[in-house]
Formats: sequence, structure tokens, C-alpha cells
Amino acid sequence: MSDQTTTKQIVVTRRSPAYWRATFNHPPLNIFSPDTIPQLNEIIAALETDERVKVIVFDSAIEGFFLTHYDFLARIEDTTNLPPGPTGLQPLPDMLVRLSRASVVSIASIRGRATGVGSELALACDMRFASREKAILSQFEVGVAIVPGGGPMARLPRLIGRGRALEVFLGADDFPGDLAERYGYVNRSLPDAELDEFVDTLATRIASFDKRAISETKRFVDVASLPPDYEIAPEWDVCLASIMRPAAQERIKKLMERGFHKPGDVETRLGHHVGQLGVAS
Amino acid sequence: MSDQTTTKQIVVTRRSPAYWRATFNHPPLNIFSPDTIPQLNEIIAALETDERVKVIVFDSAIEGFFLTHYDFLARIEDTTNLPPGPTGLQPLPDMLVRLSRASVVSIASIRGRATGVGSELALACDMRFASREKAILSQFEVGVAIVPGGGPMARLPRLIGRGRALEVFLGADDFPGDLAERYGYVNRSLPDAELDEFVDTLATRIASFDKRAISETKRFVDVASLPPDYEIAPEWDVCLASIMRPAAQERIKKLMERGFHKPGDVETRLGHHVGQLGVAS
Amino acid sequence: MSDQTTTKQIVVTRRSPAYWRATFNHPPLNIFSPDTIPQLNEIIAALETDERVKVIVFDSAIEGFFLTHYDFLARIEDTTNLPPGPTGLQPLPDMLVRLSRASVVSIASIRGRATGVGSELALACDMRFASREKAILSQFEVGVAIVPGGGPMARLPRLIGRGRALEVFLGADDFPGDLAERYGYVNRSLPDAELDEFVDTLATRIASFDKRAISETKRFVDVASLPPDYEIAPEWDVCLASIMRPAAQERIKKLMERGFHKPGDVETRLGHHVGQLGVAS
Repeated sequence: MSDQTTTKQIVVTRRSPAYWRATFNHPPLNIFSPDTIPQLNEIIAALETDERVKVIVFDSAIEGFFLTHYDFLARIEDTTNLPPGPTGLQPLPDMLVRLSRASVVSIASIRGRATGVGSELALACDMRFASREKAILSQFEVGVAIVPGGGPMARLPRLIGRGRALEVFLGADDFPGDLAERYGYVNRSLPDAELDEFVDTLATRIASFDKRAISETKRFVDVASLPPDYEIAPEWDVCLASIMRPAAQERIKKLMERGFHKPGDVETRLGHHVGQLGVAS
Repeated sequence: MSDQTTTKQIVVTRRSPAYWRATFNHPPLNIFSPDTIPQLNEIIAALETDERVKVIVFDSAIEGFFLTHYDFLARIEDTTNLPPGPTGLQPLPDMLVRLSRASVVSIASIRGRATGVGSELALACDMRFASREKAILSQFEVGVAIVPGGGPMARLPRLIGRGRALEVFLGADDFPGDLAERYGYVNRSLPDAELDEFVDTLATRIASFDKRAISETKRFVDVASLPPDYEIAPEWDVCLASIMRPAAQERIKKLMERGFHKPGDVETRLGHHVGQLGVAS
Repeated sequence: MSDQTTTKQIVVTRRSPAYWRATFNHPPLNIFSPDTIPQLNEIIAALETDERVKVIVFDSAIEGFFLTHYDFLARIEDTTNLPPGPTGLQPLPDMLVRLSRASVVSIASIRGRATGVGSELALACDMRFASREKAILSQFEVGVAIVPGGGPMARLPRLIGRGRALEVFLGADDFPGDLAERYGYVNRSLPDAELDEFVDTLATRIASFDKRAISETKRFVDVASLPPDYEIAPEWDVCLASIMRPAAQERIKKLMERGFHKPGDVETRLGHHVGQLGVAS
């Protein structure tokens, strides 16, 4: 028997008290907007306090999009006016840091595009599995003159090494599932037809284990692998500052003219399109 | 001319003064028991003091098992009563830390199961090579409500990144040779028929090099890659505490009823069996 | 319109103000000698001060060699008498550290052998791409009783993990393109016929992006991934000391007798030849 709570953009399904799923469902593109923040925060807070949940899977109900970039049509004040979270970080980096530290196991099941915030949330999860045919990971921000802000420069180099991380950030291009696996950006890339069963089997397995053994083991891994918050904090500030600059405003404007924020080729092939904006100088 | 010393559970063979092999030979399963400790300690101490040895290969004489988990049938006092080693750590983590720091190159040649202590010893070695068909690596502990204790949470995330390390620990499942290579858990997976010659050629090559250049180069790599002892120490204490808890005792009991510690399916497919113990809650 | 400046051993070509190439052209073997130092330094200094350059690609004009080992025929004083660079490090490690920290994106396009200094320069670059058929990476030094000196023990373990890094250094053997990719030693290995276009497309793309977004993003990655200078400094001193020792002098002499520093099998298959020098003891 599953107990389902529907919120506007993220649907939480409790497959059992120990095994939850959070499904991004914000048509048409799973864009992350300022009003996604309290919804995600509610889920993270529940993970921190519920005594029975052991594992959560993040997936998507939207064809082609796991979770994509921040909403550039929203007023910037709707983001900058939000108070910091419990860690003292701004809300988005705060929630991602708390997700990584929660004693619950978090798994990103990536089908469709995980770009910008989508990639950052996947990187904050404990594990990432990708559809070979349908997953695309990227940090596109540098392509529009923006510095990524949700902590990925602290997380990705530790995961895949400096060289490949710099290629992801500074090339700002799309990484399909198999390449993402070769780079270590995801744990594994699986045939699309096998992804759901693989992730469900793993989550069900973890849900059958002892919560304290899980959380104590994870805490030791945290010591060896989590970046300190003081590396994450300044990314957000520099990201916001970069968005305000003319270089970013011009590129975002050009991208909007091409169809950014609307279903279509720009959102689907974002890596390609950010490569078309600049005048080679 | 080789000089062979037989001890009960680990056979040391000196192929030359510079090139030793240590072969686990504790039938039927290569279980690591409290009385394996002084035998392994003798070898580590010899590596630390012998002026001519440059390389040691760890392998197994037991079909199907490189080196597996700790002996859960031994009295816990036989483990907890042992005095700490030279590093101040308890004997098992002490020996593994000293193996990593020794100026001798250590190579794990993995054919069969390397689970629990077997995986931890392999991770403490400088390099790991696996049989494609016959190697299985795993940290099964969380599957029986135990926190691993020999330092792997400090070592594995640094080797393969946080995401894949969390999958190894919290999924507690079996990783065959090729998957272990894709994850970086071993340096390479080789066809079983080629493993011995590959490792022997590499060890012979290293044995022909200059000992001081080896040890000074290794020391620089240590600075960049070894976890500090203070990360390793608490793993052991938390591991012992977890074993004492009812959650672990119940699961170990169930596993014993299925055939744990006896040749057969439980020991051979340990990853599968620990996934059957819990009541999904 | 490209503006070409020819220096003796490294040819700098400005494909555009934002996109430079530095081509090693020191026939017949692209050996790195004391007089390569001021030429490389001039390029690094230009990267640090030019306000328009965003990306530089290092490649080679010499068939079979990207950039190989230091010149062992040069007088050692020509190296040791050089004053330290701006970082306080000796010239070679100083330049490599500055290359890594420059706000310009550096890409090594590796066709032919990248050994010793060649590997060290590639490791100091932000990204590395290799020809599947023609690239060979290695740190051969331990094979001639020398400790590598240009910072690779600080860089490579952070990039590919301790186990594989120890294999590279202590096995001192050749790593062809595909194996280098599997190990993470390069970002990717590509069919030789595709390498140039791939790298050129990536460099052109990066050159079209905003310089400030590039440099600020890179700086965050630096925090998470660059080794501190105090890890790099002692490698150079220990390297020089090791070269002076009889063990190294004898091996270098043997290698010279076989044809080291001359076009031919020793330079082409250096990994094989350093494995033939020692008497297994």
C-alpha cells in the first residue's frame, strides 16, 4: 500500500515507510523555479526527521527532462530575498548540502536532461544512475557567461577528477549517459529499459537494511568525501553576481530569442545552442 | 631458488630476495580469524625491516576465495583483547595502515571472493588486479547491520569517488572483476588465464628497480593519497559496537542458519543472501 | 588571420586573439632541455598577462613525440643554476603550477609520447585528449632509479586515485591512449583521425565563451582539486638528489649505451627498455 502526497512540482510517493520516491513533475520542462524551493525543502526536512525512511529515489514524470536549469524568467528578488537555510547557506545550496548529509540514502535515477540545478541535485545525491539512451547531464552555465552556483565545482572534481570536471564546466556541453559513466559523472549508465528495475531493486534492497548501520557507514564516507560548506558558500554569491553582468544578460537574451524556456530544440540540445551564442574573438 | 616458509594460514614464498608472495591458504573459505592476525603481522613486520624486499604479491591458494570476511564464530574477546599495534590502532587497521606505508610495493592479485577483510586488505595494497571471470569484491557488512571496520570508508571514496563508494557500502552487493575495474575498485580486470602472468611480470619488473627510488616516489604519493590514521581509528570502534547490537546479531544468526561460514551458496553468493535477510519495512 | 611567432622549440600560433596553440617542435625527439625553459616561460607569462586569450592547446609537430623526458646530456648546472620562478618554486615546477592556475584553459592534445616532462606538462594542463593509436603516456623515471620531479606525485593520485597512480609511477611503463582513458590519465582517447577536429572544436567553443565566467569557475575547481605548492616543491629537490646517485647514473649510462637520446627503439619503447636495465636481485 503506498501513501501518495501530491504537491505542485514534486510528487512524493511512499512505496513503504522506508522507501520513498520524489518525482519531478513540473511540465513542460521541469525547470527549477523559486517556488520549487519550499517544495524541495519540505522533502529534505522530512528526510531529516522521519525515523523510518532509509532511501529516496529522485526521478521525473516529464519526458525528456529529469530536472533542468533555474528559471531565468522569475524575478531575481524571488530568489535573493529568501532567508538562508539551517546551515547558514542560501536555500538551494543549503538543501543540497543537507541532502548529502542526511542519514537517508539518496539516488538520482536520471532519464532526460539533468542540467544546471538538475545536475547539481544529482551530484548532491549519494548515487546517480542514468538511462543510456535518454539521460543527458550538463553544467551549461559558463556557456551563458554564468558561474554555476549550487556547489558543483566543489563536488564534481572530487568525484571525477580535475581534468574531466574542467571539461564539464568550461566546455559546458551535453554528456550523454555512457560518456557520463566513463567520466564517473554517474555510477552507471544502463539501457533505458533496465534503469527502473535496477534502481528499484537497489532501493528495495537498501530499504531492507538496518538504518543505523546505513547512517553510521555513510557518515564515515562523508568525512572522506564531502566538500566543506565554506567551499560551497561562495559559489552561490559568485553565481548571482555573474548573472547580473551584461555578458550573461546578453547571452541569456540571445538564448531566449532562440527559444530558451520553451519546449523545443534549445532546451533539448542546450549544449549545442550555448555554443552558438558567442562571437569568437 | 626460492625459499619457502609455511605458516598455518598464509604461505610466504620468496621468489627472490626482492620479490615475495604471500598466499592465503586457510581452507575451506579463507576466512580471516583472530589467529590470522599474528601471522599477517609477522609478514608486515618483515616487509618493514627487510632491506632487500621491494615487492610483495598477495594471492590465494583456495579456489573461489581470495580472502573473505572476519570469523564470526570466534569469541569476540579473542579480537578485542589484542593490544594495539605500533601505530596505536587496533591490530587489523594497524597492519593495513602499515602495509600502505611500507616502502615495499604491495599488489593484490584477486581471484575469487575478496569480501570484508579481503576487500579491506586489497584496498590497503598499493595496487589491485582482478580475474575477470573469478574475482568478486564486496563490502557486505551493512547487509548484516554492521559498519565495516578496517578502514574502507576512508580508502574507497578517495579511490573511486563518493557515489560509487556509497553504492559499494550501502548496496553491500557483489562486484565482479569488470565492474570493479569500471568503478576503479581495482586497477584492471584481466582474463583469468592472463592474470598470473600479468602480475608476475609487473612484480618482476618492479623487483628489478632501485628500492630507494621506489620508496621515495611512493612516499610522495602517500602524501597526496593516504587517509590520515585519525579517520581510520574510529571505524574499528564503531564496527565492534555495531556487531554487538541486536540488529546485527539477528541478521548474522539468520545468515548462519542459511549456511554462513560453511562452503556453499551463502559464502559464494554473499551479496544475494544478505539481500534476503531483512523484512522490508 | 593568424599571427605566428616562431621560437626555436615551441611554435606559438594565434588562431585568434582568444585561441592560441603552442606546438612543440624540437627535432628529432621533442626532448625538454634547459633551454626549453625560458621559451615555455615566455608562453606561460603571456597567458598570465594577455587579456584576450581564453584557451591554449599544446600539441606537437614531431612524429611520434608529444614532449618527452628531460635532457640528460645537458650539464646539470644549466638546470640547477636557474633562479626560482615567481612562485618560489624551481623553474619547471614553477611554470607548471602557474599553467594550472592561469585563468586560461589549457588543453594537451597528445599524439606520440608524453613521457617524464611531457606527462608532467600534460598533467598540469586543465584537460588532456589522446590519440588512440599514437599517444603514449608514462612516468619512466623510477625505471632509471630517479624520482619524478615536476609535480606528478601530487597531481596524478588526485586525478586517477592512489592505486592506478602507483602503478604508473612504480611500474614506470608505457600507457597507450585507451588504457590512459580507462585510468583517467587523459579525459578521453579518440581515434587519431578525429583528435584534431575534436580538440579544435572544443577550443573554438571555449574561445567563444566569456573569459570572466571561465576564470571564476576554474578558480573554484582549483580550490577543490589543485595540490598545494608545498607538496610540489620537495619533489624537485628529491628528483635532483636521485639523479646524482650511482644507481641512477649507472642505469642512465646503460640506457645511453642502448640508444637513449637518439631516434630509435629506446626512445620509442622506453617502457620496455627501462625494464631491461636492472639485475633482478
